[in-house]
Amino acid sequence: MNEHTPQAQAGARGEEAISPSETDAKLAELEDRWLRAVADLDNLRKRISRDAERIRTDERARVAAEWLPILDNLELALSHAGDGGADAVLDGIRAVRDQAVALLAKLGYPRHDEVDVPFDPARHEAVATVERADADPGTVVEVLRPGYGDAERQLRPAIVAVAKKVE
Amino acid sequence: MNEHTPQAQAGARGEEAISPSETDAKLAELEDRWLRAVADLDNLRKRISRDAERIRTDERARVAAEWLPILDNLELALSHAGDGGADAVLDGIRAVRDQAVALLAKLGYPRHDEVDVPFDPARHEAVATVERADADPGTVVEVLRPGYGDAERQLRPAIVAVAKKVE
Repeated sequence: MNEHTPQAQAGARGEEAISPSETDAKLAELEDRWLRAVADLDNLRKRISRDAERIRTDERARVAAEWLPILDNLELALSHAGDGGADAVLDGIRAVRDQAVALLAKLGYPRHDEVDVPFDPARHEAVATVERADADPGTVVEVLRPGYGDAERQLRPAIVAVAKKVE
Repeated sequence: MNEHTPQAQAGARGEEAISPSETDAKLAELEDRWLRAVADLDNLRKRISRDAERIRTDERARVAAEWLPILDNLELALSHAGDGGADAVLDGIRAVRDQAVALLAKLGYPRHDEVDVPFDPARHEAVATVERADADPGTVVEVLRPGYGDAERQLRPAIVAVAKKVE
């Protein structure tokens, strides 16, 4: 029995004698540290998969947003061509424009250029108010630049003109 | 002293008596578990920042690649317009094409449509071989579809025709 007393063991390791209550406290502390490290590990693992999805979404939005001015300019150039649809070259380029709009929708950013809808500060940016007898005040009457994306995942709001009360 | 013996303590907790050597083994095991959990945590933290960069890069490539067919079609439509540069509308659309190519370069995918360079399987995909007296065999003589990106970050290889030995 003698070689099993804490004192005998501590002596064999050349350490100070540790009383059983100290050993017990150290056990409890180590167990606590281990449990906390395991809990941290678990939380970190959960955070990783959430973060991965957020990083992906942010990067998708960033790259998609960079293409918007290109699409805007394409549409601006086409608007100068008017509606003369007989030209096969312009028809081809209009198809490219449609393809770009479809891709944005597929990436999660559908186009919004609706008129006759109530102004919504979450998805519209008003740059003008106009008197219009045929529209209720606060109604979007013109879209000057389309918006892309929805509430949670908006690439940019639509820039619009809004009807005001006719004096 | 009696209340400090392991037996007395274990009895107070209503557990089986643990001998000092068992306590010692449990201490060592707990310390080992804790150290391993801390090491896992450290490795996980390091992995997170590496993974974040990889996820970002992958998503950037995925979104940029989705725009390539749109750019291809824009160029195809413009190629049908020939070189008649007098048309202001087409000039505008050519500027859009240049803007798209510049954006791809900015995202890390410069355009490659060089001819008179040696065929390189890492960045070229040969779909035709042609006899050309004025070009060394194995030289790229025509680019049928430009490639984007460089060795480590290639969006797609250039599709080319290569000179073969003149019989």
